[in-house]
Amino acid sequence: MKKMLLLYLVIIGAYVLYALNFFYGKSQQAGAGDSAALVGSLDEKYVMVTFQSGIDYWKSVIKGFEDAAQVLGVSVEYRGSTQYDVREQVTVLEQVIAQKPAGIALTVMNPEALTPSIDKAVDAGIPVVLFDSGAPDSKAYSLLATDNYNAGVTAARTMARLIGGKGEVGVVTLPNQLNHQQRTNGFRDTIRAEYPEMSIVAVEDGKGDRIVSRDAALAILDAYPDVKGIFNTDANGGVGVADAVRLRQRQNQVKVVAFDTDKVTLDMVRQGEIAATLAQGTWNMGYWSLLYLFHLHHGLVTPDSGQTADASPLPVYVDTGIAVVTRENVDNYYVK
Amino acid sequence: MKKMLLLYLVIIGAYVLYALNFFYGKSQQAGAGDSAALVGSLDEKYVMVTFQSGIDYWKSVIKGFEDAAQVLGVSVEYRGSTQYDVREQVTVLEQVIAQKPAGIALTVMNPEALTPSIDKAVDAGIPVVLFDSGAPDSKAYSLLATDNYNAGVTAARTMARLIGGKGEVGVVTLPNQLNHQQRTNGFRDTIRAEYPEMSIVAVEDGKGDRIVSRDAALAILDAYPDVKGIFNTDANGGVGVADAVRLRQRQNQVKVVAFDTDKVTLDMVRQGEIAATLAQGTWNMGYWSLLYLFHLHHGLVTPDSGQTADASPLPVYVDTGIAVVTRENVDNYYVK
Repeated sequence: MKKMLLLYLVIIGAYVLYALNFFYGKSQQAGAGDSAALVGSLDEKYVMVTFQSGIDYWKSVIKGFEDAAQVLGVSVEYRGSTQYDVREQVTVLEQVIAQKPAGIALTVMNPEALTPSIDKAVDAGIPVVLFDSGAPDSKAYSLLATDNYNAGVTAARTMARLIGGKGEVGVVTLPNQLNHQQRTNGFRDTIRAEYPEMSIVAVEDGKGDRIVSRDAALAILDAYPDVKGIFNTDANGGVGVADAVRLRQRQNQVKVVAFDTDKVTLDMVRQGEIAATLAQGTWNMGYWSLLYLFHLHHGLVTPDSGQTADASPLPVYVDTGIAVVTRENVDNYYVK
Repeated sequence: MKKMLLLYLVIIGAYVLYALNFFYGKSQQAGAGDSAALVGSLDEKYVMVTFQSGIDYWKSVIKGFEDAAQVLGVSVEYRGSTQYDVREQVTVLEQVIAQKPAGIALTVMNPEALTPSIDKAVDAGIPVVLFDSGAPDSKAYSLLATDNYNAGVTAARTMARLIGGKGEVGVVTLPNQLNHQQRTNGFRDTIRAEYPEMSIVAVEDGKGDRIVSRDAALAILDAYPDVKGIFNTDANGGVGVADAVRLRQRQNQVKVVAFDTDKVTLDMVRQGEIAATLAQGTWNMGYWSLLYLFHLHHGLVTPDSGQTADASPLPVYVDTGIAVVTRENVDNYYVK
């Protein structure tokens, strides 16, 4: 009888092992068949590399990268130069390349300095995509960033809505930086094309500085007593422009349109001293950067896309968009 | 002893059930936690709507849409007007909206005619993204298309490479269509900026027709005996331009750069009568359209993106890129 029992146990044990194996095997298959294409592994590490890594601006980019990592089941890491220092950024990028990660999302402080390292990574089989600012002559697969000209178009339409489509307006900008030239051009072209009763009376250099921008705005306010609005194209100057409007006690006559969503800018939107500020699609930059890197790492885009060495297997440029932030929706834009 | 055996069996049976449940439950959890976000269901149907639905140009867009559907585990359907007929396309789109699909990817034959239906779909909660050609004032969430200006830039650099960076060139285009103006402008601006020894001596109207384009090219060839290359900006004319070069027996002196990858164009690339043609990123249009629709349908982009009613939760514009097709890689571009 004992032998009999042992036999039963062996048979049942074998069945248990078979059943477990069957179910376990099935669940593995489900992973491979239904969804494996967009399911990664935690061994797969994707690295984001920034400069001035502590600033608020990157927080929403990082949130997008993290949200994508959770969706895909992969690991992420954040690196960057702490200062606005391109040599430090190159050093950090070289360290990251040496780790051979599954992919690198990079924002480029200076295209000339960083292109050799970008090309080195791509040549070594590490996918690189760029976000926020690019390196046009590098081998990076894609750039996900704000179309600055279109941002200027949105600024013009926002200003027109605020001042009823007529009157004089001024611009405070960085006239020597390409992205700020593009914002100013989009603003100017749109006013010319769509708002015949509006005109730009002054374009001043704010040097990306709160005090300089305040003084530039004071000059506009004093020279043009009928000015109805000022568009500031960079993240720091809008607060200075609003300071100037308050100093001249023209808050009821002059609308300020600012750029980006630094805390002090948002505070002034909440208080009504800045009528609107433009938020860049930073979450999109992070989220879609990781999706692109994942597709490259897993070879999901190259083989079937019919593309060749002449072309990127991915979309080459993505305009991550602009949102208009006013008092009504400003609370959504504070960094949590 | 029999009772004892029964007891063993019950205990072992319970253990088996427990073990199975444990493993099965775990595999379910893995499905839900690690990957559910990008795993759809076959009940979810996404519809692509084109016009002139039979042409080769859409085949690679459809392939991209299908590849994405397989990766995501969702269903897709293709609809469209068979003719170049905007009323038929509106009718088809209205029928599709009435089905309440999970999302619609649409290429827009005429923005004015289609915008009301696009807005109706979005207002009814059906996500709409546009590919290849857009409707800028509609409520569609994104446009995935070729940047035509950049395509012209690529054409200029390709031409410069083919003719050694010096000499006279001509253009055959559709001067009254915006996308063709943009291609011509990118071509012209790049030659002016990057190739001081090249010049554009003629820009002729080919009306998108093989015969008219041939005659336009003959006029250029006869007026400019030193012309080194002709860029044709549309899908039909390149073959006509190559006909003209052969008629005048100037194949050794004049390089033709064409657009798109119709079979007859590819055949002429293979034979060396067209030196290069530009392939649009059509697979990307289809693939990323479906990924965007999936993200909208599943609410994966709205809640965390910090975006608001003013902005699309998705990137608003995607440049799906251009690849240069020459004799070396032409075999990859025939529709399978």
